[in-house]
Amino acid sequence: MERCGRQSFWFRQEPGICSWASIAGRKEGQGPLADRFDQVLTDDHLGQASWEQAEKKLQERSLELALEKIGKGRFWVQLVVGGDLLNQCVATSFALRDQPLPFLGVYGACSTMAESLLIAGMAVSGGAAHTAAAITSSHFATAERQYRLPLVYGGQRSPSAQWTATASGCVLLTREPQSIRLESATVGKVADWGITDAANMGAAMAPAAFETILTHLEDLGRGPEDYDLIVTGDLGQLGSSLLLDLFDRQGVSLTHSHRDCGAMLFSPARQDVHAGASGCGCSASVLCSELLGRMQEGTLRRLLFCATGALLSPLTSQQGETIPGICHAVSIIRED
Amino acid sequence: MERCGRQSFWFRQEPGICSWASIAGRKEGQGPLADRFDQVLTDDHLGQASWEQAEKKLQERSLELALEKIGKGRFWVQLVVGGDLLNQCVATSFALRDQPLPFLGVYGACSTMAESLLIAGMAVSGGAAHTAAAITSSHFATAERQYRLPLVYGGQRSPSAQWTATASGCVLLTREPQSIRLESATVGKVADWGITDAANMGAAMAPAAFETILTHLEDLGRGPEDYDLIVTGDLGQLGSSLLLDLFDRQGVSLTHSHRDCGAMLFSPARQDVHAGASGCGCSASVLCSELLGRMQEGTLRRLLFCATGALLSPLTSQQGETIPGICHAVSIIRED
Repeated sequence: MERCGRQSFWFRQEPGICSWASIAGRKEGQGPLADRFDQVLTDDHLGQASWEQAEKKLQERSLELALEKIGKGRFWVQLVVGGDLLNQCVATSFALRDQPLPFLGVYGACSTMAESLLIAGMAVSGGAAHTAAAITSSHFATAERQYRLPLVYGGQRSPSAQWTATASGCVLLTREPQSIRLESATVGKVADWGITDAANMGAAMAPAAFETILTHLEDLGRGPEDYDLIVTGDLGQLGSSLLLDLFDRQGVSLTHSHRDCGAMLFSPARQDVHAGASGCGCSASVLCSELLGRMQEGTLRRLLFCATGALLSPLTSQQGETIPGICHAVSIIRED
Repeated sequence: MERCGRQSFWFRQEPGICSWASIAGRKEGQGPLADRFDQVLTDDHLGQASWEQAEKKLQERSLELALEKIGKGRFWVQLVVGGDLLNQCVATSFALRDQPLPFLGVYGACSTMAESLLIAGMAVSGGAAHTAAAITSSHFATAERQYRLPLVYGGQRSPSAQWTATASGCVLLTREPQSIRLESATVGKVADWGITDAANMGAAMAPAAFETILTHLEDLGRGPEDYDLIVTGDLGQLGSSLLLDLFDRQGVSLTHSHRDCGAMLFSPARQDVHAGASGCGCSASVLCSELLGRMQEGTLRRLLFCATGALLSPLTSQQGETIPGICHAVSIIRED
């Protein structure tokens, strides 16, 4: 790898993306990306006794699906990098207990898919592993119970709130040459512009996305026009408009190149999710359905994938803290 | 880097350890390693309004101390990899909010220091960063409140329980040649042998330590005699005896080369901590005091550092789950 600028590096030996898979819950499967997912659940419990066990199953299944597509068994994977939103990241740890593979657990809130790709990419590019999986999940019911209220309370949601996606995505990387590859990455810094409303995560994360994308472009000497798509995940509708506004003030227009996973997963007209989707599984499942699907079809060739996370905990909010955000960016290219 | 065996790799360009620092709480500062710590707290609150803010300060301070030793400012650091035990890893995230540096958050419970070193080492060895910091913390009061009971309840502790260390350790890595270097690493798998007693973490983690150390030795074609010291962190007294027993059954004696950070931090005779110390800060502070101190003095030249973590959450225990463990190993050598 080659360090570049303040926060970025090039994958000199570019890790190839040889497979990916997404799995989505019932509601997610009724949205605009319905046909893109590898599997849509009919039962968000996945036959398990608890929501947490269901989320664990999501991860197991998305890894299995990604491996099935290339006809490989799980021992093909030399390293798994992944995480989730649950306290102590138990969805991932327990999924990897029952599929024992070398495992590095990461926590970046909803930025976890980009962080996992970045670390798995470093391992593959540098030679520490010949193959690796990046995997994350989230589940609406586990997140609501942990961060807000148990579902049975029927609490009313704020208009700025986002809907935690029930979904998982898995990307498989290899040192073998592939047409779709990781090209570069920018490691995010924690950004905190003083937002305190835990029901407005888009606003809390937009500054981090702004800083990371701007730094990425500066570090690599690029402009937005160098990408077909700059995708954040998951600012939702409100955070996305803040991001575009922040870039406008810099004299940089992101309007034509920007989309947001949180705004792509659900249909605002047909699905009542307020400000959009969120959760580690949101950006992961959008990447592993629509985005990599379009790259495979050739209608998307240069993608900047910028997953965003809000690094609060219920406790920090109770203690009156503001909400720090982070955003990691990975550029993914298709070159035949 | 060069992949080696099932779970290991060599750092071909070996990341140099150019500085380290440790900070320990009052009780930790009364133990056998008292003279080794860079700073011992007189007030475990660190003048903060909450224990969580105190833990955040621990991390800020250990990073500052490590940088001060080599006369560098914080912008010398191109990447920080770190984590802690708090829900959503907020000690680290908030520490990195106030010292904004490129940051990858990881979660490996008490194995986090080895995982952070391993990932930071991959970044430096592979060229993604020229310098990096690996940092973790734990705090007795935040851990008791989150995992067990608030301190003011005065709950009685089980004889097999370990005492979460109030401590932080930080290691600085560089591509510049150093006599103390990371040599190789083994990424752990999740191991779960069915332990359900959350007050006996040593037993839950011993199988992971056993599997990782055994795999490390097999992958690299080594025996215990190839290391001056194989240090686990933090099995405590009970977990350590289980580990030695597991190796004995393999016909491998670890008795002379093994020590455990959880058993090193406190004095069993003088300090009432039951089965020893634990917490991400335990192995980190022992590494960054006694162990790297001895490497600097030249009395220790070949160290296998194997931090161990129990990947449970209070919720998984409530749901009747067993306790999975993980252990990552990093070999650290001194060659002048």
